Amino acid sequence: MEIKKIRIGQTITDYYFGASLSQLKNVADKKHSIILTDEHVFEACKSKLKGWNTIVIKAGEEYKIQQTADTVIDSLIEMEADRKTTLIGLGGGVITDLAGYVGAIYMRGIRTGFIPTSLLAMVDASIGGKNGVDVEVYKNLVGTIRQPSFLFFDTSLLQTLPTAEWQNGFAEIIKHAAIKDAAMFRSLKEHDAAWYQKKKSELAALVRRNALLKTKVVQLDETEQGDRKLLNFGHTLGHALENQYELSHGQAVSIGMTYAAHLSEALLGFKQATALVKLIDQYGLPTYADFDRTKVFDVLKHDKKRERSNLHYILLQKIGKGVVHTLPLTQVKQLIEQI
Amino acid sequence: MEIKKIRIGQTITDYYFGASLSQLKNVADKKHSIILTDEHVFEACKSKLKGWNTIVIKAGEEYKIQQTADTVIDSLIEMEADRKTTLIGLGGGVITDLAGYVGAIYMRGIRTGFIPTSLLAMVDASIGGKNGVDVEVYKNLVGTIRQPSFLFFDTSLLQTLPTAEWQNGFAEIIKHAAIKDAAMFRSLKEHDAAWYQKKKSELAALVRRNALLKTKVVQLDETEQGDRKLLNFGHTLGHALENQYELSHGQAVSIGMTYAAHLSEALLGFKQATALVKLIDQYGLPTYADFDRTKVFDVLKHDKKRERSNLHYILLQKIGKGVVHTLPLTQVKQLIEQI
Ligand SMILES: NC(=O)c1ccc[n+]([C@@H]2O[C@H](COP(=O)([O-])OP(=O)(O)OC[C@H]3O[C@@H](n4cnc5c(N)ncnc54)[C@H](O)[C@@H]3O)[C@@H](O)[C@H]2O)c1
Ligand SMILES: NC(=O)c1ccc[n+]([C@@H]2O[C@H](COP(=O)([O-])OP(=O)(O)OC[C@H]3O[C@@H](n4cnc5c(N)ncnc54)[C@H](O)[C@@H]3O)[C@@H](O)[C@H]2O)c1
Ligand SMILES: [Zn+2]
Ligand SMILES: [Zn+2]
Repeated sequence: MEIKKIRIGQTITDYYFGASLSQLKNVADKKHSIILTDEHVFEACKSKLKGWNTIVIKAGEEYKIQQTADTVIDSLIEMEADRKTTLIGLGGGVITDLAGYVGAIYMRGIRTGFIPTSLLAMVDASIGGKNGVDVEVYKNLVGTIRQPSFLFFDTSLLQTLPTAEWQNGFAEIIKHAAIKDAAMFRSLKEHDAAWYQKKKSELAALVRRNALLKTKVVQLDETEQGDRKLLNFGHTLGHALENQYELSHGQAVSIGMTYAAHLSEALLGFKQATALVKLIDQYGLPTYADFDRTKVFDVLKHDKKRERSNLHYILLQKIGKGVVHTLPLTQVKQLIEQI
Repeated sequence: MEIKKIRIGQTITDYYFGASLSQLKNVADKKHSIILTDEHVFEACKSKLKGWNTIVIKAGEEYKIQQTADTVIDSLIEMEADRKTTLIGLGGGVITDLAGYVGAIYMRGIRTGFIPTSLLAMVDASIGGKNGVDVEVYKNLVGTIRQPSFLFFDTSLLQTLPTAEWQNGFAEIIKHAAIKDAAMFRSLKEHDAAWYQKKKSELAALVRRNALLKTKVVQLDETEQGDRKLLNFGHTLGHALENQYELSHGQAVSIGMTYAAHLSEALLGFKQATALVKLIDQYGLPTYADFDRTKVFDVLKHDKKRERSNLHYILLQKIGKGVVHTLPLTQVKQLIEQI
């Protein structure tokens, strides 16, 4: 187990890499900790959770709402959680977002740690301190930004992750490579998802590299004034597609990255669009899609990254070098219609 | 109107003293602001709120709950509040606590300002960034610590404040004098509540002095590790009494201060207990009370300021010099039974 102490803003977060759930007792005291998890993850980890206090909620994005936060708070009261309690989120991004939120508001903030169990949560959702719940159709409308006290990476937990969920993680990994890490892009090209699923130490190294990559971006820009925006690569169009079609987040982002690559070609002379599209495809993710341009642009108009009639669109100068570009909505529409 | 820029932690808050509600438009843009207030305050200020977007909730502590926060958030969505919106809490401590909380979690934090309208909110509740809601019997169990962007003091708003509510404010003012400000203690002795209610500029000066006094305490100790604890003078026993008897907060704190003064006499040789008790009485507040010792100590046992069997009790060395004292619960009980 490797320990790295990382400062973001005023908080120091302990990152435990190469950890195993059985070592959790060295990081948090059983008597003063409460684990929040969902039914799937609880089922998968049950035998390792003996002796730990747990709150188990239903799985799924539709439970990432205030009402669930309220019931978690009721459970915390019942379990006599106080200022000395650590709340530990064990699960995918839904759980880490919810645990981060409840941990931030219960008694105006108690010690909180995350054990991400999905690939997406390991490389993305558990990192950076954004937390929250959805309100009606608005994702993450309510929440705070607050860094956890620790992050505990046990990649062996991924063994029970359903195949479809791996895709969501790989989409963000490819995104990281595209905006910030050409070397990782090259090694991703040499393998595929199935290979990483079999290779324990390579998978652990990939998770570590991505967790640290996102961490660095957040460290330099906790409140998303600048560089943190790059993490939205593929997400502007992606979110609009996710709202309109039955796509997973990873699928939507992959299509978004594909079109953003071609926009980058047209606007910045980006030369590796084909290579990026090929990599996305190699990891089993969709690329070009036959979507209703008008409908999707209607949603884009309401994108929160919009300022009046301009969009902050993330483009690539080259693989490993993402940039924030301000574009008139009409131009984005025109260019995408041509692709 | 005097403007003071005050830094607490990472935030700078603009304090507007001697302000008038009609000047609010110079501090916040009508188009991008939403005022949260309660029905009493709305009724009292209606004519001055023309052209402002408002959310009006029912008045009373029983509405300082998550469910009200949820409906306020629904209203914000309906009114299309976004990252450029300022949420302004106009009201007593219930409103400033609620506005601070919603402002901290809506879109992970939007610009928030307070216009305290009760004496208690002006000298205490609106200052220091603590916000939140009650959960069942637990006061302020959920919330955050986040400083507002501005505080707007218009003491003419107090003209409509019910007489009973003035008491709550004066109890905290006497508390401030006792723990930190001997000079203010001396000038309080020369007048009474009715006098301040008539003297506009003296009242404004008293509010300003107390707002800045609490600010200074919070500035030195935002997260209540040390000096901020002094603000709990009279509150340990006070809270226990408030839970058990039909007392207002100001009444309970006044009785709490009375007993804390005698504890200070017994433990620290404090010599001004009689003077303090006299001042409390002069402002129409209760002092000695015939309460059920056993019952009240049962509640004290569960006080959150307790660590195992010790209480952090705030005592006075002299008027203007409060200190944090760690006392065995049994000793507090014994001493109070003797008074
Ligand atoms: N805070 C952030 O910065 C951030 C960033 C990206 C995404 N997110 C959020 O993350 C969420 C998506 O995360 P997710 O994809 O992990 O979703 P999720 O938490 O819903 O997990 C996906 C599914 O996999 C199951 N699962 C997770 N780990 C498992 C394991 N080890 N074994 C068996 N089953 C397991 C879950 O029960 C769930 O059914 C969204 O709510 C999104 O908004 C947050
Ligand atoms: N955040 C903090 O640091 C802090 C500190 C102390 C108290 N508080 C909180 O403050 C609350 C108590 O504050 P409060 O005593 O102001 O209570 P409040 O907000 O309930 O106001 C008291 C009553 O006076 C009415 N009112 C207020 N201003 C008025 C005006 N100008 N004209 C007519 N009516 C008016 C209100 O409608 C209400 O009925 C509690 O919830 C307490 O927890 C918070
Ligand atoms: Zn994403
Ligand atoms: Zn008080």
